Amino acid sequence: MQDSLSTALLELKSLLGDRLSTGVSVREAHGRDEAYSTPALPDAVAFPNSTEEVAHVVKICATHKIPMVPFGVGTSLEGHVIPIHGGISVDTSQMNRVLQINESDLDVIVQPGVTRKQLNDELRATGLMFTVDPGADATLGGMAATRASGTNSVRYGTMRENVLALEVVLPDGSIIETGTRARKSSSGYDLTHMFVGSEGTLGIITKLTVRLFGQPEAIMAATCAFDTVDDAVNTVIMAIQMGIPMARIELLDDVQMRGMNIFNPDLKLPEKPHLFLEFHGSERGVAEQVEMFQRAADEFKASDFTWATKTEDRNRLWQARHDAYYAGKSLRKGSEGVVTDCCVPISALADCIAQTKKLIAESGLVAPLVGHVGDGNFHLLILVEPDNTDEMARAKTLASAVNRAALSFGGTVTGEHGVGTGKKAYMAEEHGAAYDLMAKLKQTIDPDNIMNPGKIV
Amino acid sequence: MQDSLSTALLELKSLLGDRLSTGVSVREAHGRDEAYSTPALPDAVAFPNSTEEVAHVVKICATHKIPMVPFGVGTSLEGHVIPIHGGISVDTSQMNRVLQINESDLDVIVQPGVTRKQLNDELRATGLMFTVDPGADATLGGMAATRASGTNSVRYGTMRENVLALEVVLPDGSIIETGTRARKSSSGYDLTHMFVGSEGTLGIITKLTVRLFGQPEAIMAATCAFDTVDDAVNTVIMAIQMGIPMARIELLDDVQMRGMNIFNPDLKLPEKPHLFLEFHGSERGVAEQVEMFQRAADEFKASDFTWATKTEDRNRLWQARHDAYYAGKSLRKGSEGVVTDCCVPISALADCIAQTKKLIAESGLVAPLVGHVGDGNFHLLILVEPDNTDEMARAKTLASAVNRAALSFGGTVTGEHGVGTGKKAYMAEEHGAAYDLMAKLKQTIDPDNIMNPGKIV
Repeated sequence: MQDSLSTALLELKSLLGDRLSTGVSVREAHGRDEAYSTPALPDAVAFPNSTEEVAHVVKICATHKIPMVPFGVGTSLEGHVIPIHGGISVDTSQMNRVLQINESDLDVIVQPGVTRKQLNDELRATGLMFTVDPGADATLGGMAATRASGTNSVRYGTMRENVLALEVVLPDGSIIETGTRARKSSSGYDLTHMFVGSEGTLGIITKLTVRLFGQPEAIMAATCAFDTVDDAVNTVIMAIQMGIPMARIELLDDVQMRGMNIFNPDLKLPEKPHLFLEFHGSERGVAEQVEMFQRAADEFKASDFTWATKTEDRNRLWQARHDAYYAGKSLRKGSEGVVTDCCVPISALADCIAQTKKLIAESGLVAPLVGHVGDGNFHLLILVEPDNTDEMARAKTLASAVNRAALSFGGTVTGEHGVGTGKKAYMAEEHGAAYDLMAKLKQTIDPDNIMNPGKIV
Repeated sequence: MQDSLSTALLELKSLLGDRLSTGVSVREAHGRDEAYSTPALPDAVAFPNSTEEVAHVVKICATHKIPMVPFGVGTSLEGHVIPIHGGISVDTSQMNRVLQINESDLDVIVQPGVTRKQLNDELRATGLMFTVDPGADATLGGMAATRASGTNSVRYGTMRENVLALEVVLPDGSIIETGTRARKSSSGYDLTHMFVGSEGTLGIITKLTVRLFGQPEAIMAATCAFDTVDDAVNTVIMAIQMGIPMARIELLDDVQMRGMNIFNPDLKLPEKPHLFLEFHGSERGVAEQVEMFQRAADEFKASDFTWATKTEDRNRLWQARHDAYYAGKSLRKGSEGVVTDCCVPISALADCIAQTKKLIAESGLVAPLVGHVGDGNFHLLILVEPDNTDEMARAKTLASAVNRAALSFGGTVTGEHGVGTGKKAYMAEEHGAAYDLMAKLKQTIDPDNIMNPGKIV
């Protein structure tokens, strides 16, 4: 391998010049993500600037059987981009152009290195928006690869629903296009969805067509408190059954709210389970949605409603929600967080959260809970002292018990973060015989196991 | 093969008894679909009544390398269910139970032989509805296999968006489950979407979990006329950009309208391009949508609005739309129809239809046009005399030219009918190198090519 690696590096250098880096700081920046996992350095980082260059890089690596790991901005949470078998980190950040905005079709074609905030900045003049919003300002290539979602998905869908077409460089360096810009198709196997969520293990995404939505005429945001998590979740179920097209509906439990108040003393919200809400529509439509929602919330004794219509008030509210990770950590100075990502059918959500809270109590650890509850998805942030191996072991035991609880309720161990290395241990249990089929697909498409080896399967 | 077939038939007979039929009339009923394709008889028809029986049937066929063709109610339109290589037609019509309605989760688990009308009948008391509505009363297994859609898809999605999870018997007889009832997941490769649209070539669907929606509080339907197809299509584009959540928006051209008036003389609609519309929402929401739509339609000089609020008026209107096929045929007594199924980005729809109409004029044939224009999908019904080989050749030339036009506009040759044998000739052109990958997937999952051989790839 060392010889073939040296040859590959020479060939890559001759292809990319300065855009191949073997410097330690660049390699270190590509040797970790935002998860609490052990870093591992790539042998080099390639910065291709076109599909053809990506294909060329892949062909060189394929010839010499050198592993490749596609890399966006490194905001994954399960070790997806960590080159655990070394090789080349293929950084697509220089492929960051918005290629074609199709206003009439409500779609846009972008290179994989475009980030979600960059895209929305470039769309601002059109009145259109890209809606998928994971916490981080991730690249669209990375978001497609992890099948990301966020706070808006209850209304506008995840990357699964929002990617219409892809260009992908396969592990042999050939280039394919999947899907079209047509809104629907019955034309053969759905390769687009095979690559969405494949975490760089089947190929490198070099172009994406994603859906856009019109910016709503009116937006109203709100927070309200409940005596119990059950009441909050039952309000969500009722709101969805009433057909209220909620744009955002987020749960924060009492522990998380305590952290929010510590992190931002101006917030001064009651330390009870909360829903953070947003309604999109016409002026009249939003008014009607709010009225319907209040009817549902009244049934479950919601209190402490605060309303935000002005943009700055809404932004403050959602900034507080996006700061949830740091707010949670402020419950325990200097702690690290182990994050879970369960998603269950919404009818099972209250029970699954109740069981989760029991498991937290038994663990003796502090673990605030936030959730995209309209989708049945919730996260724990289990707080541990860095380097406290006993606590880390207890945190992992707790995470594992919570994951198994989600499976027992007919759910999944990852609603939006992906598998990477962090969730691999659960795959056989979650998917049964279907996991064998996943392995077969990987083997077919990447027979030499050079495309992000060691992830998912 | 004859020996192994005899052995397989003996084994199947011993498994299924009377539920294996080799009678000619049963075989004939499984030797054609609703397309204008050459029939071909299966050697026998199996009627399994459980997943385990399907798996057993598949194992017997796999052992003896006998082809299998999954069969619902035979309403496919591209020869999907025709056993062109003989073998066993696996009829799932006895697996027709609704297994579990999950009202809080807005989903339902069904066996593959449940039809869409049966499902909606069983759902009526719940206030929920299953929305995908191809013309025929197809089975849900068949609809998933062809990635079907219909008039509601512009609002509620196609089978691609509505299938949450599947149970599938693979070509080796093993049983897998794909997906969960959780609303989202980032857990590994998206096998659900690989089987949706696979037309029985990768396995037999034995169970489906599909999404449901609440029945709207208020419904309003309407028709309106335009001077040109362009005006109608531009109204649709504007309505979508205004964010009107249209439940149905269907185009019928002047030729089709002439057929409608012949077929149903009570209809008396002007013989100009029409939109047939439906709005769903709250009372106030529907009123607002209608008002917004009229603003858009006024810009393009819409006329002859008729409104239908009462259920019977709405049903009459949509019955007329669902009769479009027969209405079209009434333009030419005793004719057969060759159906096309293009889908293009909506911005290209007016141009693609204009080019299509030019091609029709050049062909000298009569071909009414209807379309699910909110999705960019439209059908021609090219009318030919049965057994007139010259006309049939001209019809095929026309269909081919229209399909190529759709590809040149960045679209697909099949928006909702599927590939079967009818559209195979276009696959390499539409998908390029991605078609090779489809063939590899087929080879991996069905190495002996016994699962609906000769279709898609």
